[in-house]
Amino acid sequence: MAADHDAVEVISAKRDRLELTDSQIDWVVDAYTRGAVADEQMASLAMAILLNGMSRREISRWTSAMIASGERMDFSSLSRPTADKHSTGGVGDKITLPLAPLVAACGVAVPQLSGRGLGHTGGTLDKLEAIPGWRAALSNDEMLAQLESVGAVVCAAGDGLAPADKKLYALRDVTGTVPAIPLIASSIMSKKIAEGTGSLVLDVKVGTGAFMATVDDARELATTMVALGQDAGVHTVALLTDMSTPLGLTAGNAVEVQESLDVLAGGGPADVVELTLALAREMLAGAGREDVDPADRLADGSAMDVWRSMITAQGGDVDAPLPTPRETHVVPAPASGTLTRLDALSVGVAAWRLGAGRARKEDVVQAAAGVVWHARPGDAVTAGQPLFTLHTDEPERFDRALEALHGGYDVGSAYDPKPLLIDRVS
Amino acid sequence: MAADHDAVEVISAKRDRLELTDSQIDWVVDAYTRGAVADEQMASLAMAILLNGMSRREISRWTSAMIASGERMDFSSLSRPTADKHSTGGVGDKITLPLAPLVAACGVAVPQLSGRGLGHTGGTLDKLEAIPGWRAALSNDEMLAQLESVGAVVCAAGDGLAPADKKLYALRDVTGTVPAIPLIASSIMSKKIAEGTGSLVLDVKVGTGAFMATVDDARELATTMVALGQDAGVHTVALLTDMSTPLGLTAGNAVEVQESLDVLAGGGPADVVELTLALAREMLAGAGREDVDPADRLADGSAMDVWRSMITAQGGDVDAPLPTPRETHVVPAPASGTLTRLDALSVGVAAWRLGAGRARKEDVVQAAAGVVWHARPGDAVTAGQPLFTLHTDEPERFDRALEALHGGYDVGSAYDPKPLLIDRVS
Repeated sequence: MAADHDAVEVISAKRDRLELTDSQIDWVVDAYTRGAVADEQMASLAMAILLNGMSRREISRWTSAMIASGERMDFSSLSRPTADKHSTGGVGDKITLPLAPLVAACGVAVPQLSGRGLGHTGGTLDKLEAIPGWRAALSNDEMLAQLESVGAVVCAAGDGLAPADKKLYALRDVTGTVPAIPLIASSIMSKKIAEGTGSLVLDVKVGTGAFMATVDDARELATTMVALGQDAGVHTVALLTDMSTPLGLTAGNAVEVQESLDVLAGGGPADVVELTLALAREMLAGAGREDVDPADRLADGSAMDVWRSMITAQGGDVDAPLPTPRETHVVPAPASGTLTRLDALSVGVAAWRLGAGRARKEDVVQAAAGVVWHARPGDAVTAGQPLFTLHTDEPERFDRALEALHGGYDVGSAYDPKPLLIDRVS
Repeated sequence: MAADHDAVEVISAKRDRLELTDSQIDWVVDAYTRGAVADEQMASLAMAILLNGMSRREISRWTSAMIASGERMDFSSLSRPTADKHSTGGVGDKITLPLAPLVAACGVAVPQLSGRGLGHTGGTLDKLEAIPGWRAALSNDEMLAQLESVGAVVCAAGDGLAPADKKLYALRDVTGTVPAIPLIASSIMSKKIAEGTGSLVLDVKVGTGAFMATVDDARELATTMVALGQDAGVHTVALLTDMSTPLGLTAGNAVEVQESLDVLAGGGPADVVELTLALAREMLAGAGREDVDPADRLADGSAMDVWRSMITAQGGDVDAPLPTPRETHVVPAPASGTLTRLDALSVGVAAWRLGAGRARKEDVVQAAAGVVWHARPGDAVTAGQPLFTLHTDEPERFDRALEALHGGYDVGSAYDPKPLLIDRVS
């Protein structure tokens, strides 16, 4: 039982730029979870944290307190080491889909608890639910059994993990306190540490389509999260990767599953393959299996075999055709030249407005909705050729999706390529 | 009807150090009053205002929006000009009691809407309720009639004045957002402007027993409030006065009424008389009656006459004896010498713990509880002479009151007198 404190005392300390004590942090997180600290008190504290910051010790303790608010999973009984990946969210970021079976095919178990999309970034569970029959909800025992038998599982996080984070995340969403790096870092890491992985690779996105718009902010977030992982004994590495351009050639649900299948079959867009392999190598290194080259497992089909087992184990029909949209709309290239820019946020918002994402948690997404683009920055295009194909079941959505795309791409001549992998923090 | 905004938009703007627009301020204050902005959203905004500040324009608009949330009184039908006084709260601050009838005796009407005490500072209504039969609640019509017939009224503010402030004040109290100068200033001034006075004198206290501990903070608050008064067309002046030492020789309820009667009878402690006259002169000047000397009205008994009419009009029995405590406890002077320090906060907390004040709004105060001191800083004392007399109906309260007094006074030789009137802001 935490020592007795008072909400106004804790808020006032952070307001006055004092460091919160371990005891204050333990108390306020526990009391908020129990309802003894009210939403308005936590909202005031969250704003004070956002504006006055937290030390590494405070963030680490806050994270531990959120983990302690719920259950903690344990994969130590598995015969294989475990590695997990977390992306801060981007457009066309289907990497988990090929990555989890690929790493499992290399002998490392991947317990991937994922979320649903909100706003313009897609959710991994929404994408997989485009596969007929696939279900996201597994019990802890089912998850453990699948990890042992198949080696990879992508499923919804249970309600028991870090309930303090669940409550705080919903509060931050309505109180303007989302962009606080200490709270973002502790939110992500409390869930990932509670999930019990042995090692963790973070994909921190930078650019218009990402939560962090600048490399400096992304590096601060990455450094904070890596430190939190170390403090909790989880081997943690972060890659900073570009999200000014969307990944691959698709953003949506079924379209991203199809692109992932292309990668697992040994093909797929070069950037998706590059990022998948980079993250796989980090995960394998974190789990002590740097001896394995994941490129071999894509080439020999073993990653695709794990995919089929993984999807089948969760009720998915791997041989059923993926859903197709009732309507499509083609946007032609406005001129001939080089596609010099393709803006991740514009594409993400277009896919969202076509029905691939949701504005509120209660919304239902369309499996077949999304955007496919037929060139990537640097590619030559000819005036009039198809540049985008928009997919939706509801054609009245095209207008607002086209508005989102407007101004989101340029055809010209001077193309300045940007690296996908920006930095590594360990 | 205010334009349509969104709470997260308004919070984010202040969080990011932008100035809020008039439209955003009107909307958020109105929406909060209606319940369309939730407590947790206003709490987050209040913390952002506390930490990032507000411009004069923002504070002025915020004040106007709070006034617009309720009714506004109008004394223009009175045959006399009106003047009001507000103190930011101190220990032994009974000044309203002699001041209101004194100014009325000089021909200026005083509509004094007052509050109850919370914490170590006493409340004017709590003090007057020590008088048998006196009632604080008046209708607007009763108030107006008493102002015309008697010239002075001290009563509780109705629920209709600045309801936004009432709600926000209660929220700030539990969310660590009380010490925000823009919110303190707009809270005080919205009520005072809504009360409809023609001129206003502010007594801004500085020192250990006051809300503002430093002269700089007090001056900033005073300057902000004077500007708000000007913006609203109310002639406003502020005095900065010392509250490191409690006023007079008493802190409590009945004991402060008795001290006020002493002043109205032409006696009383010199500091109480000095401050009463200084504030009276400012009020008379603000109402255009600088030709009258209030000291004459104390000397000739006319202020006491108005007091008797004012108390009688609200049901009070001016001839009934004031309540006396069941128990008293004397603290002797520890040595002979000069009383060099008497700490306002220590005395205030002692009086509060004896039962004169309340910790929560629901608490009932004791009319007879309080502290009487028998010397003021600068006075000679002899070892063993009575220095304090503690009053309470519940003797189990003495121990904690004595704890509060411990260390709160010094007997020595080097006495450095401090002026009561520190500065004037107009």
